[in-house]
Amino acid sequence: MPAAAVSSSLLLPPVAKPLKPPSSVPIRTLSLRPVPAPLSARSRLLGHFPIRAAVHIDKEIPENERLDTCLFSADGPDSPAPIRVRFEKMIREVQEEVCAALEAADGVGKFREDVWSRPGGGGGISRVLQDGAVWEKAGVNVSVVYGVMPPEAYRVAKGKTGIGCGDSAVNAGPVPFFAAGISSVLHPKNPFAPTLHFNYRYFETDAPKDSSGAPKQWWFGGGTDLTPAYIFEEDAKHFHRVQKQACDKFEPSFYPRFKKWCDDYFFIKHRGERRGLGGIFFDDLNEYDQELLLGFSTECAKSVVSSYIPIIERRKNAPFTEQHKAWQQLRRGRYVEFNLIYDRGTTFGLQTGGRIESILVSLPLTARWEYGHQQPEEGSEEWKLLDACITPKEWI
Amino acid sequence: MPAAAVSSSLLLPPVAKPLKPPSSVPIRTLSLRPVPAPLSARSRLLGHFPIRAAVHIDKEIPENERLDTCLFSADGPDSPAPIRVRFEKMIREVQEEVCAALEAADGVGKFREDVWSRPGGGGGISRVLQDGAVWEKAGVNVSVVYGVMPPEAYRVAKGKTGIGCGDSAVNAGPVPFFAAGISSVLHPKNPFAPTLHFNYRYFETDAPKDSSGAPKQWWFGGGTDLTPAYIFEEDAKHFHRVQKQACDKFEPSFYPRFKKWCDDYFFIKHRGERRGLGGIFFDDLNEYDQELLLGFSTECAKSVVSSYIPIIERRKNAPFTEQHKAWQQLRRGRYVEFNLIYDRGTTFGLQTGGRIESILVSLPLTARWEYGHQQPEEGSEEWKLLDACITPKEWI
Repeated sequence: MPAAAVSSSLLLPPVAKPLKPPSSVPIRTLSLRPVPAPLSARSRLLGHFPIRAAVHIDKEIPENERLDTCLFSADGPDSPAPIRVRFEKMIREVQEEVCAALEAADGVGKFREDVWSRPGGGGGISRVLQDGAVWEKAGVNVSVVYGVMPPEAYRVAKGKTGIGCGDSAVNAGPVPFFAAGISSVLHPKNPFAPTLHFNYRYFETDAPKDSSGAPKQWWFGGGTDLTPAYIFEEDAKHFHRVQKQACDKFEPSFYPRFKKWCDDYFFIKHRGERRGLGGIFFDDLNEYDQELLLGFSTECAKSVVSSYIPIIERRKNAPFTEQHKAWQQLRRGRYVEFNLIYDRGTTFGLQTGGRIESILVSLPLTARWEYGHQQPEEGSEEWKLLDACITPKEWI
Repeated sequence: MPAAAVSSSLLLPPVAKPLKPPSSVPIRTLSLRPVPAPLSARSRLLGHFPIRAAVHIDKEIPENERLDTCLFSADGPDSPAPIRVRFEKMIREVQEEVCAALEAADGVGKFREDVWSRPGGGGGISRVLQDGAVWEKAGVNVSVVYGVMPPEAYRVAKGKTGIGCGDSAVNAGPVPFFAAGISSVLHPKNPFAPTLHFNYRYFETDAPKDSSGAPKQWWFGGGTDLTPAYIFEEDAKHFHRVQKQACDKFEPSFYPRFKKWCDDYFFIKHRGERRGLGGIFFDDLNEYDQELLLGFSTECAKSVVSSYIPIIERRKNAPFTEQHKAWQQLRRGRYVEFNLIYDRGTTFGLQTGGRIESILVSLPLTARWEYGHQQPEEGSEEWKLLDACITPKEWI
């Protein structure tokens, strides 16, 4: 299997959009139309349909029906259900909760939903709300993919940390894997309302096929971070406080460690500044009990709404000038620079042929690059934001 | 010397903009103001000013006076003058010609000029016209830098082709180098008026310092390419015809070879499409006589105005709708994707700490990323453009 399917699906879930859906029929309602003798989601996903197997394993297939579960039924014989089953259930719930909260805050815009499956195994649900009253572009994607990955893809997916797995295993044959994640970027229209990004993912591999003695691997990754164009101290404090509360329920070291990791990760090196005000970020995390980390990821993902929506409610109708909007557009340019040049998920997805539409849903609707833009005057509101991006602050 | 100074200066010339120039005084006029006891450009550039030597060699220094020549006087004892002297003279002339033609076509906008020098050796002149009547953003930069580069930077600057120089030389000590180039991206406002990019550069190294037997190296690179949002066949034909005429004066194989190289280079891999309609592109070129290649580069650079301005005159006042503008903005998003992800000059400049303002002057003022943008309908004007970007055409 080429690395593509793993990459984009794992880090930024791909979505197969029909090239020309009937423009008057929202995708979401397509499931109501009669579909000739549909196969069950389960039989498709487990590859019982031989014609599907002929499709290039990389390609996602648009689905006309909602999949109840991408992989397993949660009612299996295991009790408690395996981590991957519970992780999938969690991200599906979070997708529902977040989308409902975003639609409520918007009041007008509705999410468009694209459902896809992957012949290699798995599928996903992508939702995008574009040009609403509050949201310029808001994407909330879930994917659950599994199959067999070549050792090279495994090495890339693992990154540089090289956790656990000995080289002997990596040098062996194809590696059965499971990857699930929720990934979201929310760009509001109002320049005083901040952009939010969050992403929680779980990755699991079996022993490589030719190396039965090698250990099974797993790790968690994720984070939530805030990118305003203007700083409101009460917003930044509230946001970080919720992140810290989620962390503190599990380990007192988590918040300081993952706060710093976030500041380090979202660094636009060529600008010498961070993308925004940070939050928390972690990757390749497996040095704690698996149950603890599932609980932690769940707590973080379920805190998204309470960490963000109160800020949106305070700012979504704030009056603003053209100058405020221009500054927001300039900061959106920075967002584009970070995502296209540095973001691990984006660059990996693009390099390995992931589905563009899904990978780049994280980009803002519009951005601006002005030559010779004056540095903001010291003490101005724009300067305060820039200052906090250059020198990360402790908010709590 | 870190690679930075070479990179950005060579491939996309850096410019040192004073952080806060007096907003009412155009930079261009600063040279008219009395400057206390100015050093001559030559003594600055040759490092006769010891305080300058303490400045980090990477940093460019804004200059208040125009430099007559960045490096050598063209009236030196050599006759004919060395290639590098004549190349510098040529790019300076082309900068003048192109900027004059662009201001004439615009009628309103004027270029802002920033002059800089580099303590390590050399300097440059950057000119940007922003928000004119015709031009949204037009940058025309010239740089001439020289000094000593570490072997690693030399390897990177050479790229993968590894022309000429044996490994023994590459593995030796620091390499004295000379690099000069003109680089320009012109983004008009009207969606029917195409974006133009051109870049011509010359690179020379002496034998590495610890390896006296190693050969001196040199190569030429460059090209001119057209990126419209809408295709007018007469424009594409005219543009390619001028490129071919310039090529044919030197070698019949040049146009087909460099046309294909251009189509291959400006490929947005993750989209499966080219950035635009191509033109010509060549790099690391040294398998012809040095005089011939200087003549060829000169011919190409001096053809920019005649290949482009007639197209601008035809399109600059064409009436357009919001839909036309939206399509242009979407194509500008592709321009950003190519430049930030694939362009050798941009990525090398950013990775090695080149001056951002100059490197990213190539980005359009504004760009747009819409989720789930409908593929243009077959046969539509937008589809024709996309089709030509997916499958490059022979225009003549």
